[in-house]
Amino acid sequence: MNLDSPALLIATAAVLVASCSPSTQHAPASKAAPPTAVAVEDALVQFSLVAALAAGDYVGDTPLGSVLAGGNFGVGTFSRLDGEMIVLDGKIYQALADGTVRAADLAGSTPFAAVTFFSEDGRIESVAATSLDDLDEQLDRKLPHRNLPYAIRVDGQFATLTLRSVPGQSLPFEPLVDVVKHQVSWQHHKVRGTLVGLRCPAWIGTLNVLGYHWHFLSDDHKIGGHVLACEFESGLLRFDQCDALVIHLPQSKEFDEFDAGEIKKQDIDQIERQRPKTGQP
Amino acid sequence: MNLDSPALLIATAAVLVASCSPSTQHAPASKAAPPTAVAVEDALVQFSLVAALAAGDYVGDTPLGSVLAGGNFGVGTFSRLDGEMIVLDGKIYQALADGTVRAADLAGSTPFAAVTFFSEDGRIESVAATSLDDLDEQLDRKLPHRNLPYAIRVDGQFATLTLRSVPGQSLPFEPLVDVVKHQVSWQHHKVRGTLVGLRCPAWIGTLNVLGYHWHFLSDDHKIGGHVLACEFESGLLRFDQCDALVIHLPQSKEFDEFDAGEIKKQDIDQIERQRPKTGQP
Repeated sequence: MNLDSPALLIATAAVLVASCSPSTQHAPASKAAPPTAVAVEDALVQFSLVAALAAGDYVGDTPLGSVLAGGNFGVGTFSRLDGEMIVLDGKIYQALADGTVRAADLAGSTPFAAVTFFSEDGRIESVAATSLDDLDEQLDRKLPHRNLPYAIRVDGQFATLTLRSVPGQSLPFEPLVDVVKHQVSWQHHKVRGTLVGLRCPAWIGTLNVLGYHWHFLSDDHKIGGHVLACEFESGLLRFDQCDALVIHLPQSKEFDEFDAGEIKKQDIDQIERQRPKTGQP
Repeated sequence: MNLDSPALLIATAAVLVASCSPSTQHAPASKAAPPTAVAVEDALVQFSLVAALAAGDYVGDTPLGSVLAGGNFGVGTFSRLDGEMIVLDGKIYQALADGTVRAADLAGSTPFAAVTFFSEDGRIESVAATSLDDLDEQLDRKLPHRNLPYAIRVDGQFATLTLRSVPGQSLPFEPLVDVVKHQVSWQHHKVRGTLVGLRCPAWIGTLNVLGYHWHFLSDDHKIGGHVLACEFESGLLRFDQCDALVIHLPQSKEFDEFDAGEIKKQDIDQIERQRPKTGQP
């Protein structure tokens, strides 16, 4: 059991409450009614499903504060797809389609995000990669379990980076596979910063992005976005293995209407990856 | 926020602790380190994936005590597939292949279970069904959200019930689709008891049982199993809408080896349903 877990907090606090409260009448831990909430250790926490997002559910009813209650590290988007979300060290950054990055307004909301409380389970001290595919292949060999999700961060100096963002959408919404045709992308050189990545196992299907999903934020918080390509010579790579997946489900009409059969893995691959083939620049 | 939630317990207890502890040094809620556990409200909590079970991961490393920490109502199986699991009112029952039902030994474990803390969101006061398909179709019309999971209980007098269980397996394990060819099934008449059911939306794919999944336990706890068919004239139906899905992932070599592409929805339908076609007895 982790010392910082709510379960332990409850147990510890209940003991402390009992020890300073002669009557148990007011101790909430002694209530007979069953709980309706559960404590989940070391989870990848996602809000909605990529399949629902890809089907056009862009409004988003999840407050950004709820995202931070689910984790301090991860990726996502914003209401109306207004930029790429980078969650790093407990802060939410918004990489807009005009190329700027700002601290997100926590009064905002999101239609999709995936985060975890990053807790290092392993590292590679000095990693170099000639491409994102090269990085992914190195991680495929390094990460211990193929059927568990991982959060991965790489801090380093990046020789080249191709980033993209998308502009906020207006009704009627186009499918995501069409939205990304209007994406904006930039190439940057010699930038210090952090790759914020997730790897989801094959069984995830279209519920999240299968395989690797990388966003980036520069150390000066001025450059960020969804990573389409990168190259770097020396980075510190750390990974966090997740032992559970939590999916928060929207109650909205839009979420209820999405058709799980409509979205294929290939569509999500097209939306999220768009990578040049290996060996081609 | 639900009054029985751990999150509120933490908050309430932390306040009480602070109010009777002049030094905050020993108050665990004041620790600076981020939590690695999250509190999830109103979740369907599952242990492993039906796809992994169907692929032959029958050993099970989840203690039954962990199942009860996830919910007081649900369905599942036991280590080596030794019987059908019914979780009802916070107790775990084991319907064995010899036709007996016993209170499960909580020192045991499970390779797959799905539970929730049942909290009624709606009911049908007097429901009748000529078949399981008839019941499912009535629920399809009644349940408010097609893309959310539901737990459903029906308490009543059952005119006929066809139940099955499977015997404990030995190594080397056969695929589940072959195991159920050796299932034992019984027909019962005029039994009082409870249908314990779940409905998972289409997006669940092969992670759980898509659609309805029913187990049964008689009031006298002597008859139980996986329901293949039933008919009843008057029951009280109550349902609980789940707003989140929690999947606890096994760390075992067996879970890591399962191939998500190997199991098809049709296999799981064959394993779990085997229903006579509508209109045919």
